[in-house]
Amino acid sequence: MRRVSKEKRPARKQTRSPAEVRLIPIPVPDEILPGDNLAENLLASLRRCRIRLEPGDIFVVKHKIVSKSEGRILDLAMVSPSPESFAWAQQYALDPRVIELALREARSVIRRQNGVLITETHHGFLCANSGVDVSNVDGGRHAVLLPENPDRSAANLRRAIQRRTGLSVPVIITDSFGRPWREGLTEFAIGIAGMKPLRDDRNRCDPHGYKLKASVEAVADELASAAGLVCGKLNRTPACIIRGFRYETGAGGVRDLLRPASSDLFR
Amino acid sequence: MRRVSKEKRPARKQTRSPAEVRLIPIPVPDEILPGDNLAENLLASLRRCRIRLEPGDIFVVKHKIVSKSEGRILDLAMVSPSPESFAWAQQYALDPRVIELALREARSVIRRQNGVLITETHHGFLCANSGVDVSNVDGGRHAVLLPENPDRSAANLRRAIQRRTGLSVPVIITDSFGRPWREGLTEFAIGIAGMKPLRDDRNRCDPHGYKLKASVEAVADELASAAGLVCGKLNRTPACIIRGFRYETGAGGVRDLLRPASSDLFR
Repeated sequence: MRRVSKEKRPARKQTRSPAEVRLIPIPVPDEILPGDNLAENLLASLRRCRIRLEPGDIFVVKHKIVSKSEGRILDLAMVSPSPESFAWAQQYALDPRVIELALREARSVIRRQNGVLITETHHGFLCANSGVDVSNVDGGRHAVLLPENPDRSAANLRRAIQRRTGLSVPVIITDSFGRPWREGLTEFAIGIAGMKPLRDDRNRCDPHGYKLKASVEAVADELASAAGLVCGKLNRTPACIIRGFRYETGAGGVRDLLRPASSDLFR
Repeated sequence: MRRVSKEKRPARKQTRSPAEVRLIPIPVPDEILPGDNLAENLLASLRRCRIRLEPGDIFVVKHKIVSKSEGRILDLAMVSPSPESFAWAQQYALDPRVIELALREARSVIRRQNGVLITETHHGFLCANSGVDVSNVDGGRHAVLLPENPDRSAANLRRAIQRRTGLSVPVIITDSFGRPWREGLTEFAIGIAGMKPLRDDRNRCDPHGYKLKASVEAVADELASAAGLVCGKLNRTPACIIRGFRYETGAGGVRDLLRPASSDLFR
């Protein structure tokens, strides 16, 4: 291992300190039901917590309350699994009705192995069971589907917040997905409005004058993961505000984060 | 789509509001060199910014300054690429010396396609070029390797911080990795000391009494991603403090986050 000699230490440069970022949880004690006005509900929660929305804030919302407000809820008693779904689910002690819904919500099946069903959803997300989930609904009778068009849901929520507050804040909708290679779930952005999901630092120079080659950062996914630290399945906190992060404004949606199958080495 | 009737709305329950989480950047204007005392350097930066370490804080550090302090730096002029590395790198206008180092640091090659080299490192990380990187070093003359044993590096840093401050804080070391299926890089935990990397909520009940089945959250990766929002390649901020997140103490290392090849559907 070759050592860089101490004499070469570059002189300290004064750089502007980056700002602190705050993750401010928004508890929503009310159960969100189909037809509810989500923006109103979230803003009421903010008022209850005496939090004022500020310019520069980012709203991050777990998809489940978005799906609920949009009526993307299905009574599992009304779902008749195909014999194929039934047989496969039985084999792994899974609910065949959830598997049936997952297949209906899928554009294609990526893997079905060891009791794990990974699909590509109609939106283009690769995740377990097409994101169909029965937790945090009503104890197992209904299932929640992903929003039909999460970018549109995010844009709607953003517009509704702007109408009520006069502030134009980005909105990110998230879901927790598993990952290849790594254990555990993390939150991912599935719908985005009002900011660029990627920060492209390629061709910019680091402090040593080296031109960056691969530095495209999925900031929307990092914001989603950060939100996962304060939002949770157990604490009735399905949303948060992220304050202090300098996002790039501009058009962009979740499609920017989805690698096309043609350039993906791992399907 | 079946609708849940409004009459079924459960009564609002009082729940304890989750705490705010703060991401406090630690700028390190000095270049870290082999043999430098990293703990001392980071604590000096904290003092300069008038930040006091508090019980419950988590230290998140980008691996590059850890690798530099440990001397995991190589002069690229000393690396002779094999004819194979040379031919493949040439084809995609890559630096054959970086490819050669990546292969030396790899346990196996996972994909080598379209100018992308994905390896499994000796540690078990799946990432591009075995994590070998030339940005933020000295303009392209030296390359930085991942720490030899990042869990050990994290434990060492944690002990050194404890000796100097009396506070026993978890330490997470991170690197930015690409992901299958998604565009852009995010920060991942590659070394962990002083906290459990996963939070296992399986068999706990959601507010509706439904028993969670799959809820294992990779909190160390979410903390790493959150840190990515304040740390950066361009702002000399290679570390931050995360304050307010209730981590689980206990033994654990990055191995907990690495899915064994035998149960991984995507290699």
